[in-house]
Amino acid sequence: MRVSINSDMGESVGIHSFGHDDALLGLIDTANVACGFHAGDPSGIAETVRKAAAAGVTIGAHPGLPDLIGFGRREMKLLPDEVRDIVRYQVGALVGFLDAEGVPLDHIKPHGSLYGMVARDEELMEAVCDVAEQYEVGVFGMTGTAHERVASRRGLPFTSEFYVDLGYRADGSLIIARRPQATPVEIATERAKRALTEGVAIADTGERLPMTFTSICVHSDTPNATDVARAIRAVVDEHREEP
Amino acid sequence: MRVSINSDMGESVGIHSFGHDDALLGLIDTANVACGFHAGDPSGIAETVRKAAAAGVTIGAHPGLPDLIGFGRREMKLLPDEVRDIVRYQVGALVGFLDAEGVPLDHIKPHGSLYGMVARDEELMEAVCDVAEQYEVGVFGMTGTAHERVASRRGLPFTSEFYVDLGYRADGSLIIARRPQATPVEIATERAKRALTEGVAIADTGERLPMTFTSICVHSDTPNATDVARAIRAVVDEHREEP
Amino acid sequence: MRVSINSDMGESVGIHSFGHDDALLGLIDTANVACGFHAGDPSGIAETVRKAAAAGVTIGAHPGLPDLIGFGRREMKLLPDEVRDIVRYQVGALVGFLDAEGVPLDHIKPHGSLYGMVARDEELMEAVCDVAEQYEVGVFGMTGTAHERVASRRGLPFTSEFYVDLGYRADGSLIIARRPQATPVEIATERAKRALTEGVAIADTGERLPMTFTSICVHSDTPNATDVARAIRAVVDEHREEP
Amino acid sequence: MRVSINSDMGESVGIHSFGHDDALLGLIDTANVACGFHAGDPSGIAETVRKAAAAGVTIGAHPGLPDLIGFGRREMKLLPDEVRDIVRYQVGALVGFLDAEGVPLDHIKPHGSLYGMVARDEELMEAVCDVAEQYEVGVFGMTGTAHERVASRRGLPFTSEFYVDLGYRADGSLIIARRPQATPVEIATERAKRALTEGVAIADTGERLPMTFTSICVHSDTPNATDVARAIRAVVDEHREEP
Repeated sequence: MRVSINSDMGESVGIHSFGHDDALLGLIDTANVACGFHAGDPSGIAETVRKAAAAGVTIGAHPGLPDLIGFGRREMKLLPDEVRDIVRYQVGALVGFLDAEGVPLDHIKPHGSLYGMVARDEELMEAVCDVAEQYEVGVFGMTGTAHERVASRRGLPFTSEFYVDLGYRADGSLIIARRPQATPVEIATERAKRALTEGVAIADTGERLPMTFTSICVHSDTPNATDVARAIRAVVDEHREEP
Repeated sequence: MRVSINSDMGESVGIHSFGHDDALLGLIDTANVACGFHAGDPSGIAETVRKAAAAGVTIGAHPGLPDLIGFGRREMKLLPDEVRDIVRYQVGALVGFLDAEGVPLDHIKPHGSLYGMVARDEELMEAVCDVAEQYEVGVFGMTGTAHERVASRRGLPFTSEFYVDLGYRADGSLIIARRPQATPVEIATERAKRALTEGVAIADTGERLPMTFTSICVHSDTPNATDVARAIRAVVDEHREEP
Repeated sequence: MRVSINSDMGESVGIHSFGHDDALLGLIDTANVACGFHAGDPSGIAETVRKAAAAGVTIGAHPGLPDLIGFGRREMKLLPDEVRDIVRYQVGALVGFLDAEGVPLDHIKPHGSLYGMVARDEELMEAVCDVAEQYEVGVFGMTGTAHERVASRRGLPFTSEFYVDLGYRADGSLIIARRPQATPVEIATERAKRALTEGVAIADTGERLPMTFTSICVHSDTPNATDVARAIRAVVDEHREEP
Repeated sequence: MRVSINSDMGESVGIHSFGHDDALLGLIDTANVACGFHAGDPSGIAETVRKAAAAGVTIGAHPGLPDLIGFGRREMKLLPDEVRDIVRYQVGALVGFLDAEGVPLDHIKPHGSLYGMVARDEELMEAVCDVAEQYEVGVFGMTGTAHERVASRRGLPFTSEFYVDLGYRADGSLIIARRPQATPVEIATERAKRALTEGVAIADTGERLPMTFTSICVHSDTPNATDVARAIRAVVDEHREEP
């Protein structure tokens, strides 16, 4: 099993830069590029796609809720049609830039609260999968959730993620702070090693959670993102070389 | 020469409906669909594309300035890169919906002040043409302007428009009111006939302006849009049948 | 007891007009003016305030969720601080226009999903009341909800509303369609008379709901808003004259 | 003559932080707080106002063009009424937060392209002054422009600014880069000393420009903003103590 490293990118907003995208592009395998609703803007998307293509990483769409001020992290009650339409709009917009650079769309990974909403609601996840099917790409998500159930049912490639810079609750859900927090490199490294070798994560309340995944997500926006990414790159590469 | 009728559509904003799209779809040949920046929203675009496809009209992109409150009618100083990026973003988004309905993109027609900006500035028009070239489609615009010069130079199909529900100044530029005004049907009809038979329009100050065009634009948002469209449809059809 | 008629107004968005504000201003007692988040824009607010002041109606603030495309009708998970800040921002903005016309702020009435959110959550309603207290005005809301409980507890004037152009569920909550629906004038009239004389509304499932109120809300955006407002004006005026 | 130091602040956008506001608040005399159109959001404004009030600096409004992606730095063709309405809206919103903290509005300083537009067009500057007059505050701007002419004519307090971290053209206009650039501390210091003692600035093409001012602006968003502010604070304090 080959485990990849993915990172959410292109989340600047005009002059407001965000994340350590440039440094991370040399350390990851695939970039999930923001599409303008929770973050990102046309010229920022163009730049991110150019740089990601130049770095040779694959590129997925990272559509979010239409809430720039809340960074797509404030849940909104949307109808399945609305989810399908905002995802289609954002993915289509990104594909315009990918196409201009001659690179294909690799996958769709919803952002923030949209990621959580479609993890819990199969009907909403169906809407995301309608767009994935249209573009003949897979989806990124969390194992054991509607992400995986709907994608599998529809025969779409599903990439399950493990997060090294976020905590997990005992029910397997992620603990997302309003502001990005630094995870000490040793802790991120330890989490990655445990997940890769034992297939478990430790919940914030101590439980061992079975963890199936084929990609590790490293956030670009934590203060020490580059150090974490470098460490995880080493762990993943080492793990792969083992017999 | 076959003259078509085109109309700007899909310019609703959420619950705020706009224009007489449903009535006009049976009377026109091609719809320029708003893409979400000056007007339009993902679910509105989805609905407009579905209806236009069902009506059998061809569909072009109608990208505008990022100014919903100003309806894209307040000029903004944008760099050529910014124009290229906002047009690419919007056209890509629309193509996502077209693709979902299995219909092709027919052309690009910039909206409002963007239309005017790229009529006057060849560098900005080059940016629009970069996107048209990417999608292998033509552009709609006004003859004798940067619209036509740049499109021709680059070998892109160019459709020149004549407006029956707007006045012209002596320099050939359009008189666009902040709020849509009704043009009496007889005046619109007379303008269309004169343009089709004599190849001229009469400026607001009386001058005869040579008018070369292959499409007549009828706006969907004037109070009497349906009546105007019906009348122009009759004029165009009659003109075509003449020997 | 004097029962007033209130109406939500100023919900146009740029060129996208909305509602029958002009006609209703002569028929109502107080206008709740949109503040730019769910609808409304600076120049539209200026115009609405001018017209409402000229018509002699009192003016309240009608702040909503930051979701223009969803018209503030898609619930968002906001923290109490966020609710306080978006309400303060919007009310402050409106007060700038009121002050320019020399008219006072009369009250605050949250819009759409925000209205519902603060009806159910006392902590969020406290945030709204912080702003009402700052401006020394009362709040409009529904009796028996957090609207009333928090306002009463804090000693803020509370105006309870009855809706003649919306249905009620058996639990007293309102049935709000995505698109405004016409309520036949006879039905609206009957509802108003029953509520005024018997103090009840009939739920969509037939139950009699006790209804305490001091203001009737007539929406400006239904197709027959003017007719409904005229009829309700007559009912209210007649009721007042009775011994 | 007492020369103050002012700085534009509160230009974060949700999670996207911006500038070195915290560090600068201890070094400046007055903060111009963004109001949500070119940057800033309700909760960010609340926080900035709280911190500025705690630091004891005076607070002015810093309204901008409605263009978050362009940071208000892309000129828009607005009518005088539109300028008045967007300034009134933004100033009113800010005043809601000031009032909640019990601090007064000190002045209005338009941002970015709006600053430039109203420097060149007296009719637009009149619109800004209408709002200043309403709030009985002065305006910040550049001497020798419509800023000063209109404010003086209307008897409004006018504070003329000198910029130490931007270059000047020979015609006295500012050279504003799309992205904030660091000005070496020695250069900023030298510029401030020369302006304070000789009353001149040196244009990028070498001309000596007469410079009348009562406030020095230090931007919060340059990489070395804190160092520049500290140096300018020293220069201004020293200058004041001289006989």
